[in-house]
Amino acid sequence: MVSFKKIKSFALISVFDKSNLVFLCNLFEKYKIGIISSGSTSKEIKSLGYNCFEISKLTKFNEVLDGRVKTLHPNIYISILHNRENHDHKKTFKNINFPKIDFVIVSLYPFSKYKKNKSYNAIEMIDIGGPTLLRAAAKNFESVTAISSPSDYTLLAHSIERNSGTTNLSFRKKMAAKTFKVISKYDQNIHNWFIENKEKKYIKLKYGENPHQKAKLKIKNDFNLSNYKIQGKEISYNNILDIDSGLDFLNEFTEPTTVIIKHNNACGIASSSTIKKSFVRALNSDKKSAFGGVVLLNKKLESGLAKILIKNFFEVIVSPGYTNEAIKILSLRKNLILINSNKIPKKQKKIIKSVRMGNLIQENDNLSLSKKHLKIVSKNKKLTHREYEDVLFGFKVVKHIKSNAIVLVKNKQTIGIGAGQMNRYDATKLSISKYKENFSLKNLVCASDAFFPFVDSIKLLQKNNCRCIVVPNGSINDNKVINFVDKNQLKLIFSSLRVFKH
Amino acid sequence: MVSFKKIKSFALISVFDKSNLVFLCNLFEKYKIGIISSGSTSKEIKSLGYNCFEISKLTKFNEVLDGRVKTLHPNIYISILHNRENHDHKKTFKNINFPKIDFVIVSLYPFSKYKKNKSYNAIEMIDIGGPTLLRAAAKNFESVTAISSPSDYTLLAHSIERNSGTTNLSFRKKMAAKTFKVISKYDQNIHNWFIENKEKKYIKLKYGENPHQKAKLKIKNDFNLSNYKIQGKEISYNNILDIDSGLDFLNEFTEPTTVIIKHNNACGIASSSTIKKSFVRALNSDKKSAFGGVVLLNKKLESGLAKILIKNFFEVIVSPGYTNEAIKILSLRKNLILINSNKIPKKQKKIIKSVRMGNLIQENDNLSLSKKHLKIVSKNKKLTHREYEDVLFGFKVVKHIKSNAIVLVKNKQTIGIGAGQMNRYDATKLSISKYKENFSLKNLVCASDAFFPFVDSIKLLQKNNCRCIVVPNGSINDNKVINFVDKNQLKLIFSSLRVFKH
Repeated sequence: MVSFKKIKSFALISVFDKSNLVFLCNLFEKYKIGIISSGSTSKEIKSLGYNCFEISKLTKFNEVLDGRVKTLHPNIYISILHNRENHDHKKTFKNINFPKIDFVIVSLYPFSKYKKNKSYNAIEMIDIGGPTLLRAAAKNFESVTAISSPSDYTLLAHSIERNSGTTNLSFRKKMAAKTFKVISKYDQNIHNWFIENKEKKYIKLKYGENPHQKAKLKIKNDFNLSNYKIQGKEISYNNILDIDSGLDFLNEFTEPTTVIIKHNNACGIASSSTIKKSFVRALNSDKKSAFGGVVLLNKKLESGLAKILIKNFFEVIVSPGYTNEAIKILSLRKNLILINSNKIPKKQKKIIKSVRMGNLIQENDNLSLSKKHLKIVSKNKKLTHREYEDVLFGFKVVKHIKSNAIVLVKNKQTIGIGAGQMNRYDATKLSISKYKENFSLKNLVCASDAFFPFVDSIKLLQKNNCRCIVVPNGSINDNKVINFVDKNQLKLIFSSLRVFKH
Repeated sequence: MVSFKKIKSFALISVFDKSNLVFLCNLFEKYKIGIISSGSTSKEIKSLGYNCFEISKLTKFNEVLDGRVKTLHPNIYISILHNRENHDHKKTFKNINFPKIDFVIVSLYPFSKYKKNKSYNAIEMIDIGGPTLLRAAAKNFESVTAISSPSDYTLLAHSIERNSGTTNLSFRKKMAAKTFKVISKYDQNIHNWFIENKEKKYIKLKYGENPHQKAKLKIKNDFNLSNYKIQGKEISYNNILDIDSGLDFLNEFTEPTTVIIKHNNACGIASSSTIKKSFVRALNSDKKSAFGGVVLLNKKLESGLAKILIKNFFEVIVSPGYTNEAIKILSLRKNLILINSNKIPKKQKKIIKSVRMGNLIQENDNLSLSKKHLKIVSKNKKLTHREYEDVLFGFKVVKHIKSNAIVLVKNKQTIGIGAGQMNRYDATKLSISKYKENFSLKNLVCASDAFFPFVDSIKLLQKNNCRCIVVPNGSINDNKVINFVDKNQLKLIFSSLRVFKH
């Protein structure tokens, strides 16, 4: 074998995955690039009929600790890391009399394959030397090529062939970027393994929105919903969606309040002096829709209310607390899911929703509605206390109903919810038709989640006993709306917040 | 200074962040743990009045390449990595005559702080030695403690104090887990820096669903929607949601098809012999709702259609192609956004939605509806070709309308969409009321996204000229529904797929 001094450029190869080594060795032989290797890689290279220099002979340091320490030698790192343009670096490198490593080819110990083995043997698969070699090469990408996967050998060959024995900067940069990605994932896997031994990060769900869709819940901050289930059947994907929506509504209120959710929309919501009263009124908002729904309360559930609840069919009840007697009563319905909401995170800061173009990330609409967002714009500015309370209640509710949304309110009870419509007039018509089904009242309050583009909806509201309307401003017809309102002695409040929800 | 041989246990300290070094040195001094260090860390320790051993003196190897190679020496790694329970390992360690390192305290070069400096100087902040020391210590957590942040010094002190000079296994394991997390993030940052120099991964959006919510789009696979915008104002968060929903509808059809989206629901959709005809019919489905909508076509947009489109107000048009003449015509509406859908990813495999308990992840509903999912269960089994086509069309549409959803169809045109309702009867009523507003036809086809719990909806459909119904089975009242259908000579098709969408 020739002395390494006659060879200008070297590749250090240390691969767990030995596929396509022939391709690689052929390439280096063709371009007179020397090969440095050790252990099982060097055995394999030699058995394939190629020459290679043993690392241990070059460093005069033998592999120890069953392979735990092989390549962690300063001369190797001086060779990889020295700046080829820096006079002092070049001098240091020359002094150590060592081959110049311009290529580092490493495939890491396959930690992921072994991690399922819960014994500590998986630890032997935590590669220390490999990531260090790759990271050093990637750091010095201005001169050195880091190859972290056999799948890149073809690209490497293309670059070497086009550049007569060396690679081009953009290729080295691309491979360096990939290297840090590979190692980041590798270490993330190791981290997960450490954590998994402690606690699961995913909860498997029976299925998704429909039985033919698989689904799971990736838990944040080790929060496991099942820990807060008191009784009942398995919590479904749609249950979780509904519980989440329901808690959004409840966040708006401190008074005893009940919300009943169906298909991610509220079908009834009411605030009252007691939680029992609020439940009865939320149920009466739209009893037909409430069937099979998810009921969320913001106060402790006691036996009196439990006795009423048990007479109806619901899928889930969520409350910040239950008396023992209440649990006993509700346990007669074995499938009914009871959740303690006390430990469920109050709010999301960010909302993530995947679309085919990527992930949409937005701040959650956590702004609390207050007086400063509202302005009476009608001539008639005399809101009764009750009207003002209903304006606040209605707007807090409509904020969480799917757009376009119109909500009719009386005494902090929804009496007509027009949800999910493609135009505002339809949403208005729908809320009125729902109202007429169940109620016949005077002086209704209406809340809209965005401006009225025309006067048609207001006309309809006026005809149906609505005297007070809260709505975001912003239409080019805002003035027409104000004129109509004033002509009919209605009360109109503009909100500076628009509250779409899709 | 005493010889290292008299000290049983050592801490190797190499910290960029030098906060709380006094606390740390005090702790080690108290428990007679020796300190090994180098460079600026050792200077600082000495200036604080503590003793420490210089790494270079112990390894007899000087720091070189302006600090690029300091600690990458096999003796250090033999000391950290040797298995304290393994006879051969212990022998190897004894032979090198080196201090036993039981604690590795490293704070990494702050790459993130420097990465914004787009020059290559940031590269000097890619730490090679630090991560290697930490990873080695974390790998050997059965004996060695890895501390990757000054914020953990207090915990370290607690553990050492409770265990009279050593740490307990569970603490070491916790710190090892953290170490891999820290390094994974560190390398992810470096990777992002490499990529950022090439392309942005986030697109900032003007705002989210509402003006008071900040938002951005995290791009998948370097796909940038703006690259496919031909003209028009800035694409909004809600535009992206609507485009994504619209493409879900179009994926179902190969015939020329137009869908018009408002608030994430279709307000009109039609398949016809030409794309122009399909647009006109989709618009006529519900002209009122279509105002200001997002129009999606599955065929090239030509001048004839452009002349019709320009007469209406839309926010966005999406098409797989445009003739130059069509673009010229549409350019008269400067704000109108034109998108080429050709390069937009066809489908999402997984859907992610964040809730306060974590992230819900489900398979997308990408199953293609076919004959095998449908079964005629009425006595009357003679569906005309047209009816059968409308059954398929209607069910494909209702799959993507928000639940509860009922869709009325005639000749592959939606003629009444009842979307987003909290009970099925309301959805049915809504679809019929929408139908009556715009049409008066015979032999309608109805599609429902889940079973009818009662017969009431079917009665209403029958009264309003609907003769053929496609609906998922699964109600305890399925037989009652079949009986009613048979008594009234209606046609009923059961789908084995339920198609909720929330």
